[in-house]
Amino acid sequence: MLEHGIKLDLERQARLGFDEAVYAEGKSTQQLRALIDDASQANARRLFTRLSEAQFATLSAEHRGLLDYDRVSRSAILGGGKFAYETPRAAIVCAGSSDLGASREAARTLEYYGHPSSLIADVGVAGLWRLLERVDDIRDKDVVIVAAGMDGALPSVVGGLVPGVVIALPTSVGYGAAEGGRTALASALSSCAPGVVVVNIDNGYGAACAALRVLRARRDI
Amino acid sequence: MLEHGIKLDLERQARLGFDEAVYAEGKSTQQLRALIDDASQANARRLFTRLSEAQFATLSAEHRGLLDYDRVSRSAILGGGKFAYETPRAAIVCAGSSDLGASREAARTLEYYGHPSSLIADVGVAGLWRLLERVDDIRDKDVVIVAAGMDGALPSVVGGLVPGVVIALPTSVGYGAAEGGRTALASALSSCAPGVVVVNIDNGYGAACAALRVLRARRDI
Amino acid sequence: MLEHGIKLDLERQARLGFDEAVYAEGKSTQQLRALIDDASQANARRLFTRLSEAQFATLSAEHRGLLDYDRVSRSAILGGGKFAYETPRAAIVCAGSSDLGASREAARTLEYYGHPSSLIADVGVAGLWRLLERVDDIRDKDVVIVAAGMDGALPSVVGGLVPGVVIALPTSVGYGAAEGGRTALASALSSCAPGVVVVNIDNGYGAACAALRVLRARRDI
Amino acid sequence: MLEHGIKLDLERQARLGFDEAVYAEGKSTQQLRALIDDASQANARRLFTRLSEAQFATLSAEHRGLLDYDRVSRSAILGGGKFAYETPRAAIVCAGSSDLGASREAARTLEYYGHPSSLIADVGVAGLWRLLERVDDIRDKDVVIVAAGMDGALPSVVGGLVPGVVIALPTSVGYGAAEGGRTALASALSSCAPGVVVVNIDNGYGAACAALRVLRARRDI
Amino acid sequence: MLEHGIKLDLERQARLGFDEAVYAEGKSTQQLRALIDDASQANARRLFTRLSEAQFATLSAEHRGLLDYDRVSRSAILGGGKFAYETPRAAIVCAGSSDLGASREAARTLEYYGHPSSLIADVGVAGLWRLLERVDDIRDKDVVIVAAGMDGALPSVVGGLVPGVVIALPTSVGYGAAEGGRTALASALSSCAPGVVVVNIDNGYGAACAALRVLRARRDI
Amino acid sequence: MLEHGIKLDLERQARLGFDEAVYAEGKSTQQLRALIDDASQANARRLFTRLSEAQFATLSAEHRGLLDYDRVSRSAILGGGKFAYETPRAAIVCAGSSDLGASREAARTLEYYGHPSSLIADVGVAGLWRLLERVDDIRDKDVVIVAAGMDGALPSVVGGLVPGVVIALPTSVGYGAAEGGRTALASALSSCAPGVVVVNIDNGYGAACAALRVLRARRDI
Amino acid sequence: MLEHGIKLDLERQARLGFDEAVYAEGKSTQQLRALIDDASQANARRLFTRLSEAQFATLSAEHRGLLDYDRVSRSAILGGGKFAYETPRAAIVCAGSSDLGASREAARTLEYYGHPSSLIADVGVAGLWRLLERVDDIRDKDVVIVAAGMDGALPSVVGGLVPGVVIALPTSVGYGAAEGGRTALASALSSCAPGVVVVNIDNGYGAACAALRVLRARRDI
Amino acid sequence: MLEHGIKLDLERQARLGFDEAVYAEGKSTQQLRALIDDASQANARRLFTRLSEAQFATLSAEHRGLLDYDRVSRSAILGGGKFAYETPRAAIVCAGSSDLGASREAARTLEYYGHPSSLIADVGVAGLWRLLERVDDIRDKDVVIVAAGMDGALPSVVGGLVPGVVIALPTSVGYGAAEGGRTALASALSSCAPGVVVVNIDNGYGAACAALRVLRARRDI
Repeated sequence: MLEHGIKLDLERQARLGFDEAVYAEGKSTQQLRALIDDASQANARRLFTRLSEAQFATLSAEHRGLLDYDRVSRSAILGGGKFAYETPRAAIVCAGSSDLGASREAARTLEYYGHPSSLIADVGVAGLWRLLERVDDIRDKDVVIVAAGMDGALPSVVGGLVPGVVIALPTSVGYGAAEGGRTALASALSSCAPGVVVVNIDNGYGAACAALRVLRARRDI
Repeated sequence: MLEHGIKLDLERQARLGFDEAVYAEGKSTQQLRALIDDASQANARRLFTRLSEAQFATLSAEHRGLLDYDRVSRSAILGGGKFAYETPRAAIVCAGSSDLGASREAARTLEYYGHPSSLIADVGVAGLWRLLERVDDIRDKDVVIVAAGMDGALPSVVGGLVPGVVIALPTSVGYGAAEGGRTALASALSSCAPGVVVVNIDNGYGAACAALRVLRARRDI
Repeated sequence: MLEHGIKLDLERQARLGFDEAVYAEGKSTQQLRALIDDASQANARRLFTRLSEAQFATLSAEHRGLLDYDRVSRSAILGGGKFAYETPRAAIVCAGSSDLGASREAARTLEYYGHPSSLIADVGVAGLWRLLERVDDIRDKDVVIVAAGMDGALPSVVGGLVPGVVIALPTSVGYGAAEGGRTALASALSSCAPGVVVVNIDNGYGAACAALRVLRARRDI
Repeated sequence: MLEHGIKLDLERQARLGFDEAVYAEGKSTQQLRALIDDASQANARRLFTRLSEAQFATLSAEHRGLLDYDRVSRSAILGGGKFAYETPRAAIVCAGSSDLGASREAARTLEYYGHPSSLIADVGVAGLWRLLERVDDIRDKDVVIVAAGMDGALPSVVGGLVPGVVIALPTSVGYGAAEGGRTALASALSSCAPGVVVVNIDNGYGAACAALRVLRARRDI
Repeated sequence: MLEHGIKLDLERQARLGFDEAVYAEGKSTQQLRALIDDASQANARRLFTRLSEAQFATLSAEHRGLLDYDRVSRSAILGGGKFAYETPRAAIVCAGSSDLGASREAARTLEYYGHPSSLIADVGVAGLWRLLERVDDIRDKDVVIVAAGMDGALPSVVGGLVPGVVIALPTSVGYGAAEGGRTALASALSSCAPGVVVVNIDNGYGAACAALRVLRARRDI
Repeated sequence: MLEHGIKLDLERQARLGFDEAVYAEGKSTQQLRALIDDASQANARRLFTRLSEAQFATLSAEHRGLLDYDRVSRSAILGGGKFAYETPRAAIVCAGSSDLGASREAARTLEYYGHPSSLIADVGVAGLWRLLERVDDIRDKDVVIVAAGMDGALPSVVGGLVPGVVIALPTSVGYGAAEGGRTALASALSSCAPGVVVVNIDNGYGAACAALRVLRARRDI
Repeated sequence: MLEHGIKLDLERQARLGFDEAVYAEGKSTQQLRALIDDASQANARRLFTRLSEAQFATLSAEHRGLLDYDRVSRSAILGGGKFAYETPRAAIVCAGSSDLGASREAARTLEYYGHPSSLIADVGVAGLWRLLERVDDIRDKDVVIVAAGMDGALPSVVGGLVPGVVIALPTSVGYGAAEGGRTALASALSSCAPGVVVVNIDNGYGAACAALRVLRARRDI
Repeated sequence: MLEHGIKLDLERQARLGFDEAVYAEGKSTQQLRALIDDASQANARRLFTRLSEAQFATLSAEHRGLLDYDRVSRSAILGGGKFAYETPRAAIVCAGSSDLGASREAARTLEYYGHPSSLIADVGVAGLWRLLERVDDIRDKDVVIVAAGMDGALPSVVGGLVPGVVIALPTSVGYGAAEGGRTALASALSSCAPGVVVVNIDNGYGAACAALRVLRARRDI
């Protein structure tokens, strides 16, 4: 255990091909500082998720300077992120502008591992034509992450249109019967389209990790 | 109270324009017989819903002969049902063949009150093209009842395509996270399409009554 | 996508007869400003819902001046709202003074589309006489929106009294077993009155859009 | 413990004024026989609740002869039940004919303890006039048990009309969002009428026991 | 409707014997001031519930002077409350010190209507002897309100010990599986003691109103 | 994997001190026969839980003869069970006669591992005196398993009376708000008595295994 | 729509690479017969899922002869299934023998599309060593389907051990707090292992379709 | 009742061997001060749980000086805590660093009663090797408290590895489907490992009290 009381699973990279990311929600400034220092001294890269603007603001200018921070996704990358691949093999499709946070968390995670992605936003099913105009872009991707809250109808529609791996990313957007994303989650799990898979509510990081497992499979050939 | 222990709200017709229908689930053969006799003696019409084939089979041939029974919707009409109107002003759209029970309960209720309707079946969102081929038929209706279980995505899609009154009819089709129709219900209530309204799970009768309230409004002009 | 990162569905008007409204909850001052500027430059009208007093206060005096803001419903109308119709064909009935927020959101949405409405407040079922005194006013409307939280009994009572389209608008009023509106929602869905339809908790905007679908149907004749 | 493996709380009468009733659901014919024999040998009275027709039919003619059995409420009284009081001081109001089972379980329990009651049936809120016609009968009772399933609106309406003790008895009548009586239960607990109290779903026995606690209070004066 | 937008049910007193109480949660200072002024000008008494210390502090000294305010129950009485009766006929039993808020809300409501009550605190079932020492005090009351959160075991224990009317008042005390009072509520509804009745979570006001319905019944004799 | 398709964890005994028990629910006659044959050929002992009378009846007389079957607990022991210990160090306390199934499943599991236990039945909290008469028997045990359904109040009461390890065993006894044992489960988890631990609903086997972990700890000294 | 009232999405193959499977639950013998006849006349292959032994038995010997039926998975394949691939690139890991039904539904679906798979059974986390012995077999697969009910811990453990795509298949195995598979579902969604994806409870067909989307991606290279 | 309105159960020590701890959440500075003064004047020891840093900061320096406060667990010990035992007989195993709060609450409670414990942190199942490296340390303990949120898989894994008493301590760590600890709780209750017992979410205090009941049992021999 490091002196800030947190023990990272450093062998995860060897076993799974993933670094352990830092889930920043609820972590103190002191803990965050120590985690940044440890990583930068070890010359290691690190991905921070759910790092709020308020938390980011409590860091020193020097520490902030080490991080590539993104407000919308509340994520920070330490140690840079160059795209190792040129053509995006993943698309991220999202229903509304409120789904951008989770969507970009997915995009940033892919970026951290060298993968560019295409973001196709505001194509909710209530305006179906917007989606149909973009369907060819989506069809040629190996993996499609579909972020949707409220009724969670978009993953079913996309799952019926494209042959790639479709990962539903339910979001906590909506109120009342949307139940903080539970309805979008249950809707995706009950999808009438064959082979749609699902991750936890707002879990853009997890959706991207699943996508990476798929993309790496191909890379190995 | 009649001697079979059931008191019908016979003034409902005057007040609301609806006869009181008989919800047959759990009623005994004896109660059903008495209700048929009362109505036929009074020369009244009557709609029976949720009348199972097993219940229907326990009636005498004579009683069965008085009823126009439909297996799929488990509904029976006593006293005939002629269409008072020629052109269907209501469409009933359903996602899968398992939704036909609730859909036909709606169609039969409309029929009882003289309204023909167009049934557009098996147009679930996982095969979007089937829906899009029929969209013009749906767009020119005053009311559209949309029956869907599982992910319940269809009402949102239809609600974004047509200007008429869209009544979501969630069905108990599906398993696991479909939760007996609760997911389709919550999904419809959280619809991203503006002004979709919702009735209870499998409540084809209620969806039709709501449609009748709409259709009558027009008729009055 | 506009430069503030939000893409509106501008063809919605042609397809459905609705402008896309702006759901303001969670939007930043910067986003709101850009949306106001875009609309006013395009000489377009725009409805903002769930715009809190705190959000409204962060706008400049100039921007505030462009909006007709209503505290109770937290809604703002840009580009004015003249009543295109004279006689109210919709009533909005509400159980208690705490239901006024959702009720007025419905009234303001109707107003935005040119429809006056009658507000009949504080007629909860625990004081039934107050409702019965007003029943004639309610009976002659084409559409009745019934807002109620807590036990959610009012839509059933109204649904049994009037022949028009009855739209239940459950509200999040109450505590404990009221479950933030879920009980009122479930109660309305289980209504013993025929043909009551339901929208999401606190969704005054949706209730009004549904009412507009009904009212427009008549208008077309 | 008696030899049939069931130990009754025979001092309950002294402490609370209640005999221990036998909840028959799930009990075997052998257990029921032994309970009847014990009571009749001890010259004691006994109330059996939830005794199905199927269970009753498995008893010998002799045992059946000892019991006053009621099909609707599935209750049996051993040792007779004479009304000790002449004027009913309790009313039992029920929304629909499907609520008669729970309602009569309450009436039979009151009867077992010597109290007649007035049953006012089929006065659901969707036909409000039927209730209002009977309101004077209800107002002069000390206790009113109100049985309702589905939307559970009736207890709130009655609670706002009469000054007596109002005991809501939610029933499992309804489907879908009625959730087996949970909606009627939650609705009664969230009642906007002051001082409505609630018992468990379908618990006609418990509602009557509560009524007896109230009625006895008066008797003591 | 008064000019502060709130319409009180002033005939409730005649019909039910209850004044309409003011549920203060969420009401603005302006609304509270207007309600106090209206009542004091009309020389009327008024009970305010859920009036937080913060809300109370925003009132002027003059307005505060008109109210008898109690911090623990967050209730205020305008127009004084003299005990019309000398001997307490109601007991309020509570499991822990955290249940005192709801318990005192009940006591204050009884006080408003002239009834003294005995408060028996900190007699949770984990220290059963404390309860048993007080059981004689409880047994001779006509009504016993039993406040308990967490496991909600106390109402069952009291319901098995005393013959009076037992009103369970579940409280939101506890965390995790206590589910904000839902477990205590469900536990009381499932009580193995005969005739325990239940009110909503934290609804001390409702428990007292129910008690008053019982106490008044006796008074009428 | 054995030829009947089931692979037992035969090293469990060495690692944990438990044999793998056979959960019989849903297993076919053929599977049960093979499991009995395998064990008896290997001269091994085996505990079968949830073996219904109907399943037991489908076995041959020879196979039935190998099993010590108990109807109440639906458990069977193959290979005998002698008590290795004389004095019971565990008590099993149960609220009502309906809790005997789960209680005896616990007793039989203890028996299989050589431990006698004291069964103290029908001591539900609604008749507190029955429990208090037995409290000294309970206090001197190292482990107390407390089975209760409905309100689940008994574990809290026992947990406040005795110093030993108290294992709550919620049962599915009750209806409505008892929610098939969920209320008793949540009530035990929210217990106000310190250090009550809980197992799954109706899991008499698990409660006994936990007790064995405790009893063995002592044995090692 | 075919004459048996069911319209298949025959273009699905072209669009998604999947034939439409027949979900047999609730379908009548007549419907099943018609579906078999249509397919065999068109010389098409067809996969039937959730076809119970009872349903299968109602078919004629001739129809049964056309189907390759599997009892454990309740699936039938019409038109044969040859493995197009030699080496299994998918593993199916299952926690207990009760999970075999869902596991084999997945294996059979893969088989229908030409893919062999390795089944690794009875490796639940309570006997961790059984899993660890097989981990090398699992690590070299491109896709791993992990079926588990009860606590649903296995997908998290596997997700932390192997780099391939891990698809959690929660099953309805267990009772009480297992909640018919909801706990295993929620547990998999909350997995602490990165990038585990989830399908609906008991949805072996969906898990396999997702696996096929992954496997096909590789095939395209 | 003491003058600060809180009555402690001072005989609990004699009956159960536990002092009554003070659950500080929601208590005012004034109440906390009085409780500290009472205990220190009586020369008594006292354990405070859920005492936030904010609450602690409002105490005077003198009062703070009397308390041994721990930030991570939010617990305070008044009157010191010396270890009466040398060798730890309890282990506390936790899945992630976010589980440290509940874990240390357990450790501090054990410490208050004289028991040292071994804390084994960050051994979540996604990195199984970290757990397996420590398994020998865990195996030789009499009691193991296993804290885990999210998927709650750790208690099942540990329960399958060690013979001691395993107490699952679910924590509220996680989001979405983790449901504030409910998933970890349900997962532990559904554990496939025999004899795992469970306490409430985040209830480190309760887990330790249960451990003490076990440890004391041994001490008595």
